[in-house]
Amino acid sequence: MDKAAIDYSLYLVTDRDLIGNKDFAETVEEAIKGGVTLVQIREKNLSTLEFFQLALGIKEIAKKHSVPFIVNDRVDIALAVDADGVHIGQEDIPLTVARKLLGPTKIIGVSVSTLKQALAAQHEGADYLGIGAVFPTTTKNDADHVSLKDLQEIKAEVTVPVVAIGGINKNNIHNVMATGVDGAAVVSAIIACSDPYEAAVHLCRVMKV
Amino acid sequence: MDKAAIDYSLYLVTDRDLIGNKDFAETVEEAIKGGVTLVQIREKNLSTLEFFQLALGIKEIAKKHSVPFIVNDRVDIALAVDADGVHIGQEDIPLTVARKLLGPTKIIGVSVSTLKQALAAQHEGADYLGIGAVFPTTTKNDADHVSLKDLQEIKAEVTVPVVAIGGINKNNIHNVMATGVDGAAVVSAIIACSDPYEAAVHLCRVMKV
Repeated sequence: MDKAAIDYSLYLVTDRDLIGNKDFAETVEEAIKGGVTLVQIREKNLSTLEFFQLALGIKEIAKKHSVPFIVNDRVDIALAVDADGVHIGQEDIPLTVARKLLGPTKIIGVSVSTLKQALAAQHEGADYLGIGAVFPTTTKNDADHVSLKDLQEIKAEVTVPVVAIGGINKNNIHNVMATGVDGAAVVSAIIACSDPYEAAVHLCRVMKV
Repeated sequence: MDKAAIDYSLYLVTDRDLIGNKDFAETVEEAIKGGVTLVQIREKNLSTLEFFQLALGIKEIAKKHSVPFIVNDRVDIALAVDADGVHIGQEDIPLTVARKLLGPTKIIGVSVSTLKQALAAQHEGADYLGIGAVFPTTTKNDADHVSLKDLQEIKAEVTVPVVAIGGINKNNIHNVMATGVDGAAVVSAIIACSDPYEAAVHLCRVMKV
């Protein structure tokens, strides 16, 4: 995988609690068909076995569609299913430790909410930054708030790709992308929709100027 | 580390919720000084960063006293702190996957509660088996019950070391060891005591015939 060529523009983060009666794997596959460019599996309160099995299934779908597949937090799961990388937060395994375990070719994204954290993560070798929450979100209760102005300022100061996250939907994704970031991460705006394919198609359309 | 030479006899499993006002690291160190022969860190509901930091500290103490140090469930944490191994349950990462990630020299223990599970784990390369719960326990709510008779039968059928677990304390540890198992794993019988050193010394004394 050529890390420099990764398209971060429509970045899907999973949350099985929002999927409702839909099938997990099918929801992710429909979203990819609709235009999602990268998938991160982020599932809390699962046993390691359940998370491993879920990751194994989604990895195959992502691979089939040549979309990068990233595991939230769990370096062991990422290694176990040979994912393309991990996404870690400030309360997860330190970036330098994750890098040592995953090696130089895997993607490591880091959640940051301040310029200081952003520069530190970039310095330590993050491949991209997840910045948020740009809007109030119900899918991550502990997220700090980052205004679109802050987002734009951080984006201007770093060289690695920046993905905005937090409450992004079809009504505000255009404003997010207008800050110059490389992508928008969405959870409920795709996962919670009855038609994830259409939701992704629509987001792709309205995110562009 | 010579896996064949490991002393499983007094196997400590941590639980920070039972430590009370005592210091975590000091409690483990006192227990080792009192006679604990192996330490497994088993902590739920911690962030990955907190678990990593806790593991890093306990690993140093175990190393200082030349006692094997094992991480429950999390292969990534075990790799990150270069622990001596992991202990996995039936709801954790599959044994064959864990072995691939950890390599042949690390210890992998597996929790089982039936002969069938015991033989499967041994066949797949488990270095030892944790069998229980032999007595009612409050530290693991989902544990199946295994009678001392069942324990003895399983021990007789396998070649790998067997450690009994579940509600073991100074009053029943002698009966547990009398089944012929290689060790007894304790949690509250050491961790919850005001003097973990004395608790370990006493357990060592009464476990022997």
